[in-house]
Amino acid sequence: MKVYNNINKKEWSKYTERPQFENKQLTKIVRNILAEVKKDQDAALKKFSLQFDKVEVDSFEVSKKEIDIACNTISQELKNAIINAKNNIEKFHASQEQKQQIVETTKGVKCWRKSIGIEKVGLYIPGGTAPLFSTILMLGIPAQLANCKEIILCTPCNSEGIINPAILFTAQLVGISKIYKIGGAQAIAAMAYGTESIPSVYKIFGPGNQYVTKAKELVQQEGIAIDMPAGPSEVLVIADDSSDPEFIASDLLSQAEHGVDSQVVLLSNSKNIIDNTLIAINQQLEVLPRKEIAKIALQNSTCIYFEDIENCYEFSNYYAPEHLIIASQKPHQYIHKITNAGSVFLGNYTCESAGDYASGTNHTLPTNGFAKNYSGVSLDSFVKKITFQEISKEGIQNLGNTIEIMAEAEQLIAHKNAVSIRLKSIKNV
Amino acid sequence: MKVYNNINKKEWSKYTERPQFENKQLTKIVRNILAEVKKDQDAALKKFSLQFDKVEVDSFEVSKKEIDIACNTISQELKNAIINAKNNIEKFHASQEQKQQIVETTKGVKCWRKSIGIEKVGLYIPGGTAPLFSTILMLGIPAQLANCKEIILCTPCNSEGIINPAILFTAQLVGISKIYKIGGAQAIAAMAYGTESIPSVYKIFGPGNQYVTKAKELVQQEGIAIDMPAGPSEVLVIADDSSDPEFIASDLLSQAEHGVDSQVVLLSNSKNIIDNTLIAINQQLEVLPRKEIAKIALQNSTCIYFEDIENCYEFSNYYAPEHLIIASQKPHQYIHKITNAGSVFLGNYTCESAGDYASGTNHTLPTNGFAKNYSGVSLDSFVKKITFQEISKEGIQNLGNTIEIMAEAEQLIAHKNAVSIRLKSIKNV
Repeated sequence: MKVYNNINKKEWSKYTERPQFENKQLTKIVRNILAEVKKDQDAALKKFSLQFDKVEVDSFEVSKKEIDIACNTISQELKNAIINAKNNIEKFHASQEQKQQIVETTKGVKCWRKSIGIEKVGLYIPGGTAPLFSTILMLGIPAQLANCKEIILCTPCNSEGIINPAILFTAQLVGISKIYKIGGAQAIAAMAYGTESIPSVYKIFGPGNQYVTKAKELVQQEGIAIDMPAGPSEVLVIADDSSDPEFIASDLLSQAEHGVDSQVVLLSNSKNIIDNTLIAINQQLEVLPRKEIAKIALQNSTCIYFEDIENCYEFSNYYAPEHLIIASQKPHQYIHKITNAGSVFLGNYTCESAGDYASGTNHTLPTNGFAKNYSGVSLDSFVKKITFQEISKEGIQNLGNTIEIMAEAEQLIAHKNAVSIRLKSIKNV
Repeated sequence: MKVYNNINKKEWSKYTERPQFENKQLTKIVRNILAEVKKDQDAALKKFSLQFDKVEVDSFEVSKKEIDIACNTISQELKNAIINAKNNIEKFHASQEQKQQIVETTKGVKCWRKSIGIEKVGLYIPGGTAPLFSTILMLGIPAQLANCKEIILCTPCNSEGIINPAILFTAQLVGISKIYKIGGAQAIAAMAYGTESIPSVYKIFGPGNQYVTKAKELVQQEGIAIDMPAGPSEVLVIADDSSDPEFIASDLLSQAEHGVDSQVVLLSNSKNIIDNTLIAINQQLEVLPRKEIAKIALQNSTCIYFEDIENCYEFSNYYAPEHLIIASQKPHQYIHKITNAGSVFLGNYTCESAGDYASGTNHTLPTNGFAKNYSGVSLDSFVKKITFQEISKEGIQNLGNTIEIMAEAEQLIAHKNAVSIRLKSIKNV
């Protein structure tokens, strides 16, 4: 980690840069994949599965039998843990339901909103070395709570055509029955356009590599909604002198092990805490299976000493971290200072991995500084809120004149006439 | 209007097509404007103002004096109407505030969300023949309720450098003081990148022509959030035999007068209502100042008779209209059938223009079928919802094992270690 002292505000932008991907070549490759899937559908999916994932897929849809086998494969201990996490995530996301509330804005004029689940949603779960079944909880649970009618899931299989059993178990646990063996940009294309095997959806959720991210960005321009733009994962820790360097080190490393492009940032007003954290990182790093990944991620990472804790919070808001850990025995004193962050972890016992798996909050969060203008995934992400209004005879008599005057001032006389004609009919009765 | 009978479901997609813009040339033009503003800033804005709006602008920011003059120019009657509308819109949008609710998902594990206004937002208000001051209410009021720290507004001036006084009055009424004389794609570029005169923002809201819409789409790819994708405005009316053909005609025309690319759709299970509505349209059309615009829009528009009212609702959900009017004396019987719509107007006295101006609902709504996957603008659009979690010693003891097991199954051992190290420290005390 690079260590800095009291860096000047004018230079902050240099220290908030995220690792960048080369873009032009990527766009071209992904555009071609999208176009081919749009045109050749399943045939294109088969071709790309063979090319990128080295697997010949006969049937994309996972069978009931495969799911049953998977459910019998994984340990009861893991099942219990997943069920426990599911309960917490369900509890928190259910609390996000908004009750319909009728507001009478003027006598006889009633307005309200109704949340309706987006009819068709698609979840993408990456494959690769780590099977991210936890993301199925994070996306599948709110999709079910929102009453989305069709929920499909795409995830790549291995070269033997097998999907990790924890992924299949978790999918059936949250009630997703349409699971397809397909990954990468081609999976996003399939969900956007539909193929013979895979139905198209209105909104696509889920993390992925740069190809997946780019594909989501491109299909968004064609009218498919996506959860949010994405970039590499990151954590920022603000530690005061009541924090614990061993704990901080473990949190920074749990972010660093995600990928070589992960970024971790430590801010503190205590040089002592910084020094001890750096020592603890080196000790803890040595025993990690993914230490080579974590080491590279740490090279992209910074540690900044600010004399004044105020500057730590100001810098953090400027950085807008996906995960923000307030490492302090008294974290509540700092809450009001936080303006930009995806998810916040308060106090020394609240590790990021709790939120990654089981505390109840969602782990699909805005990265790359997008916490300035985007929220993480929540129940809101799976619904549309339709507004309703109902105006009685009395209501239009009370509000009609206001509408007529405004419509006339905007030179929209037919708008005015829609009111006048109603007012006249009431008068004439 | 084209009139059809009982069209077959297989052919519905033909009847839900929206007017399309030519795209490639448009993208190229707008990309160039964006690039030039990014590079030359104010100088580019001046150049484009002269080129497109035929106006030489010395200073983009509207002065306090200009605002004062505008406020003295418009009639008290119009002021009162705007204030009345503001009160309703404020009441409804204030009701959308979500109280912070702490959920204890497991003993010792507390989760909640906090809504924080997006720090910097930019509102775009088009110029042209009709001064859309009502849109300032629709965007400015929720921006203020959300406590956005910096709210700026861009709108083009006329060739004398003057902005319509109703726009300036409404802006100051909702507390927007930073108003800039700039329109078109160049205004969107200015808000996205910032110039010497105009600050950059994190999210851009507001309607506009195809250049503005394209510019918003393109800056979104660079990380600037936008309210929603956009297309031409539209209304769909479902009329049963308890509806009033004169009223329906006035509503269809109030949509048709918006622009030549507007679309209006009438669905009914009553041939009588359809026939009488068509007659009423022709009569009402003749006296409209914007009848030439409305006539062209009506050519893009359809009227469909379905024997079964169920089909009307099914077709409407398939079309996903921006505005949906339920023209019926008993509209509540139909509410549960509605799944895709931007805003719904219930009953014979609830004209669309009520929602356009003053009922309290927002008129910035998803067009072009986007009501399938997007909500209209609301207070939500101006906030980020940050999740918080706080875990006590007891909490991590209760939940720790679940996290450890899941992290291990995802092969993320540093994630597991962040828990183990805390559990161990508690044991050792």
